Amino acid sequence: MIRPLELHPDRLFPADPAVRAVARELYESVRGLPIISPHGHTDPAWFAGNESFGNAADFLLVPDHYVFRMLYSQGVALQDLGVGNPDVDPRAAWRLFAERYHLFRGTPSRLWLDWVFAECFGLTVQLGAATADQYFDAITSALASEAFRPRALFERYNIEVLATTESPLDNLEHHAAIRASSWQGRVITAYRPDPVVDPEFEGFRANLDLLSDLTGEDCTSWAGYLAAHRKRRAFFAAMGATSTDHGHPTALTANLARGEAERLFEVIVSGDFNPYDAELFRAQMLTEMAAMSIEDGLVMQIHPGAFRNHNDAVFQTLGRDKGADMPMRTDYVHALKPLLDCYGNNPALSIILFTLDESAYARELAPLAGHYPCLKLGPAWWFHDSPEGMRRFRRMTTETAGFYNTVGFNDDTRAFLSIPARHDVARRIDCGFLAELVAEHRIADWEAAELAADLSYNLAKAAYRL
Amino acid sequence: MIRPLELHPDRLFPADPAVRAVARELYESVRGLPIISPHGHTDPAWFAGNESFGNAADFLLVPDHYVFRMLYSQGVALQDLGVGNPDVDPRAAWRLFAERYHLFRGTPSRLWLDWVFAECFGLTVQLGAATADQYFDAITSALASEAFRPRALFERYNIEVLATTESPLDNLEHHAAIRASSWQGRVITAYRPDPVVDPEFEGFRANLDLLSDLTGEDCTSWAGYLAAHRKRRAFFAAMGATSTDHGHPTALTANLARGEAERLFEVIVSGDFNPYDAELFRAQMLTEMAAMSIEDGLVMQIHPGAFRNHNDAVFQTLGRDKGADMPMRTDYVHALKPLLDCYGNNPALSIILFTLDESAYARELAPLAGHYPCLKLGPAWWFHDSPEGMRRFRRMTTETAGFYNTVGFNDDTRAFLSIPARHDVARRIDCGFLAELVAEHRIADWEAAELAADLSYNLAKAAYRL
Amino acid sequence: MIRPLELHPDRLFPADPAVRAVARELYESVRGLPIISPHGHTDPAWFAGNESFGNAADFLLVPDHYVFRMLYSQGVALQDLGVGNPDVDPRAAWRLFAERYHLFRGTPSRLWLDWVFAECFGLTVQLGAATADQYFDAITSALASEAFRPRALFERYNIEVLATTESPLDNLEHHAAIRASSWQGRVITAYRPDPVVDPEFEGFRANLDLLSDLTGEDCTSWAGYLAAHRKRRAFFAAMGATSTDHGHPTALTANLARGEAERLFEVIVSGDFNPYDAELFRAQMLTEMAAMSIEDGLVMQIHPGAFRNHNDAVFQTLGRDKGADMPMRTDYVHALKPLLDCYGNNPALSIILFTLDESAYARELAPLAGHYPCLKLGPAWWFHDSPEGMRRFRRMTTETAGFYNTVGFNDDTRAFLSIPARHDVARRIDCGFLAELVAEHRIADWEAAELAADLSYNLAKAAYRL
Repeated sequence: MIRPLELHPDRLFPADPAVRAVARELYESVRGLPIISPHGHTDPAWFAGNESFGNAADFLLVPDHYVFRMLYSQGVALQDLGVGNPDVDPRAAWRLFAERYHLFRGTPSRLWLDWVFAECFGLTVQLGAATADQYFDAITSALASEAFRPRALFERYNIEVLATTESPLDNLEHHAAIRASSWQGRVITAYRPDPVVDPEFEGFRANLDLLSDLTGEDCTSWAGYLAAHRKRRAFFAAMGATSTDHGHPTALTANLARGEAERLFEVIVSGDFNPYDAELFRAQMLTEMAAMSIEDGLVMQIHPGAFRNHNDAVFQTLGRDKGADMPMRTDYVHALKPLLDCYGNNPALSIILFTLDESAYARELAPLAGHYPCLKLGPAWWFHDSPEGMRRFRRMTTETAGFYNTVGFNDDTRAFLSIPARHDVARRIDCGFLAELVAEHRIADWEAAELAADLSYNLAKAAYRL
Repeated sequence: MIRPLELHPDRLFPADPAVRAVARELYESVRGLPIISPHGHTDPAWFAGNESFGNAADFLLVPDHYVFRMLYSQGVALQDLGVGNPDVDPRAAWRLFAERYHLFRGTPSRLWLDWVFAECFGLTVQLGAATADQYFDAITSALASEAFRPRALFERYNIEVLATTESPLDNLEHHAAIRASSWQGRVITAYRPDPVVDPEFEGFRANLDLLSDLTGEDCTSWAGYLAAHRKRRAFFAAMGATSTDHGHPTALTANLARGEAERLFEVIVSGDFNPYDAELFRAQMLTEMAAMSIEDGLVMQIHPGAFRNHNDAVFQTLGRDKGADMPMRTDYVHALKPLLDCYGNNPALSIILFTLDESAYARELAPLAGHYPCLKLGPAWWFHDSPEGMRRFRRMTTETAGFYNTVGFNDDTRAFLSIPARHDVARRIDCGFLAELVAEHRIADWEAAELAADLSYNLAKAAYRL
Repeated sequence: MIRPLELHPDRLFPADPAVRAVARELYESVRGLPIISPHGHTDPAWFAGNESFGNAADFLLVPDHYVFRMLYSQGVALQDLGVGNPDVDPRAAWRLFAERYHLFRGTPSRLWLDWVFAECFGLTVQLGAATADQYFDAITSALASEAFRPRALFERYNIEVLATTESPLDNLEHHAAIRASSWQGRVITAYRPDPVVDPEFEGFRANLDLLSDLTGEDCTSWAGYLAAHRKRRAFFAAMGATSTDHGHPTALTANLARGEAERLFEVIVSGDFNPYDAELFRAQMLTEMAAMSIEDGLVMQIHPGAFRNHNDAVFQTLGRDKGADMPMRTDYVHALKPLLDCYGNNPALSIILFTLDESAYARELAPLAGHYPCLKLGPAWWFHDSPEGMRRFRRMTTETAGFYNTVGFNDDTRAFLSIPARHDVARRIDCGFLAELVAEHRIADWEAAELAADLSYNLAKAAYRL
């Protein structure tokens, strides 16, 4: 049976009619604001080359780990979906997905995808086994048109600025190409040094040599290594970056004396280090990065708490980022103290904290951000970037940190069209939350209107110095 | 003052009229579905012997640790309630309970008991000091009748299948008697090997000898011990079991080389082991049990995280299961990795995970179940088997794991009539949750109807291979 | 733009009209009940001397760490607010606050302050840059009048009993002065021995000598030290105390043999102890305090889980209690077992547990309080003393502990006028929660009315033996 697809104008608003009316009005006031996308993982080559995104499966299925992890959990082989397997028939992969679309009921993927299907591609029936081919053809055909090229979609969805993330080893050629082009879209980079900061990253030691080559510094010496970071940060900043990003397993920071740090770096460079050495080195590097942020003004993002590549068999066959990263319990109060003891009261420093451990929201993160001038809270992240997740974030952080120690929304996505879809969800949920505060007379309606614009646009722009 | 007792038809549905209307309709579509009770601790002797349940106190008070723990917390001696004390006057015990019925306001026990009182026994006034004797007499008198014998109640409440849990040392005589009888009720067992798997279980060493006797294997050798498990699992499966159940303090798993496992088993058998040895042995046994599940198809349940017998004085005088078990923080992401590294991608394996630590729902359990094909999530368990607990379960797991990596409802009870009472609560709460998704236009009404039947009936049947 | 300030009569009630109607009715039945304030940190000198509270900034800004921590998090220097700086112009400090009043949107401080501004001072416009001086003048002028003296406000807000907390080293002169006066207000003390129990407290060793001097006991011997506690507890009880209070970093308890305890105390007294010794000593002292509570009937409060003085620079320049305490993950199930093994079943003991780690509510605290007769749960505390925090407390504790293992509301404040403001919030939130239970037919309306009075008044009075 083929079912209609429609995006209800009141979707995601609270059910109570009085609250919903307030939410609707707030949302109307912010729905048209430009999108600030200050953190994400889209590919700058898209905007440099402006080529077609290809077929439906390559565009919407293969790059979306939210989608293929769910299908894998229900017994579909990743290779059959085209993940790590360019030989698969994309239409066949798409059918496997379409037949199982009911698995996504109640998930944010369903919300984002339906938005993309209906709003972007104009589809009017729901995805399912019976409509798989219709979808594949409609989407693939649209993608071939000029109107669905990367730059056109960027403009269609009113993206004011989009940040990608690159390794210090990246030459930023795509960003250079974008800047050299006549296109006016603002696509900037962010400095993500994990490949040269995390001793347990694949190829770390070789990456140090590449970093030496790129910078002319001796990255086997502590001084040279730090100087190389400074040079690359300056280069990234010159290419538009306003932030750095750090994806460590924990939020641990350290404050080693210079001699200790040098000796630790020697051990790391030698390759003969144990997991504690690696953790301590990452910890020290967060503090070093904070020091550099005070110098160069880049806003620092810390995204801790993922157990990367948890499924060993998947990692061995398909590599990183295959939907097998798992959140872990994450401490902040003890972990951040060494860094905060150094720089926590420095007005030039700005650190945006993220978490995959919601139990830290009210217990650690809101109290920290509600005191330290350098700390702000990033939005509900990754597994928690969802209606219920965003509501928990607001309910558990606002009372202690307020709204103004948060930084608006981040989509943090690799799936390009999920950017406008996710921002729409975030705006709806925030407006619903504000409407509840108005309905309970906890804030006035005019305050909610100011806040709606702040949460949708102003805070992100200010926090990321855009 | 005597107050009326009535079960409002809209109980437990969300208050908003529009949402409630949807919930009511969904509930009407599933209220009559048969009960699948795939995990619990009722006594198979009831259905083998089909004797009367006795008096009100022996039936409803003495076996219900939810009830007597609350009374104990407010100063009533367990012995005065008849717990571990057959000499108590059951009417006097019942009065102690009745006089304190207000203590249960806001608890699930109150919901379950009122359902039993009103729906099953037809009582129309609320329990209290003034109605204690009326209750005791009415219930005791009803229990003496044919209509309140175990098999009659089983049929009255439309139970399609009921699983009990037995030790490998159990000869399953009651299950044999049920199967040999002319009664058609499906009462099956589940393999719960804790008494021969947990070195810290009371009588563990003697249990190994009993297991040797039962199986003809030498359970002081690693090979013989494993062979004995295989034999008992096969026997349980022959008696209807489709699952195993593991009540470990933690979810730790291990993957020892064969030699290491043998040496560890020697230490365990010697009795000269420390707590780390015991924990490592339990961890290894979860992995061994997973291997056997792949062979024999029994679904594996892991119920970790209870600190058993926390109140030492109560344990010394009254023994296990006296309402003194306490939940503990429980890690899954690290703990399960050794097992998952072995078998996590094996399509023949099915593991159902439970937790007493709700902070793991969104952080660990939903991400694990939303990726690994062998993992599914059991429902809100024990202290969390309650309206708010079930809502938190759905709100915190659905967005990442979806509905289809969950397995419907488990009552997990020793209190027989709480089975239909609990399933009714679960169906109402799930329908209310689905109604909220419909009201917020996150799923369509026809999808909610499919899901209501899945959550009430289909998922449990499929997950437990019933 | 100047905006009106009004306290909506329905504030903090759930939005649904039917639920709100029930909440309103429940609230009307309890709004006039006297305030029981059994735990807090107001200054008894206020009520002894009955002097004017001074100016607006000294009264409302400088003592309120909730307020100045938020301002500090947004870049305002504490010294500029008058914190630790008597030389600041209070009007200038007040303006810094007023200009940033939007930072408090969505926080409980905003609710409490607006209540104080509107209800107590009769202000009718909202605080902001444009109204800063008007506020400063109106409040400062009111504070100079008789009607705003401490005793008058105590009576105006119908406070039946107010407990302060003092160190064993305090001579309780202000309490003596209050008792010696003709004023009838009941202001009592509570025994907070941290300065002589926590070896890591500033001045601990000197404090032992002071305790020796005060009691005539040799507080460098274990027996003398314990005897000194007994004497001071008896003195505090004679001055009205009905409780003790313990602000340890963790909830760890210990049960050392007498010889071990003596040896540990020697190490502590010598000053040559490590952090483990200090933690073990605090742990042992909780058990010793429980033993003394059984003797003298003082109710024991445990407030664990704060990382005190997290911001080292702030601590070095401004000292304790400057808004830089941070919650930590807190274990109860293991930590309390040694104490509970000793005294957990003793009917004379009453311990009220608090937490800053909400993940413990449903997992540990409600199960413990729902079993052990000596344990009760304190209300949502500190960062969680807020509308959402209180709702989470009720939702996560009630189903396992019931209402009757909780103890009503504590304001726990240093900000005097936040006492009636906070009790008003607590009554509204509890009535709203009860109204939801009524609307979902989980309790009857007459039960909700009983519970509303219990939660607002009766439970606190009973639990604190007032």
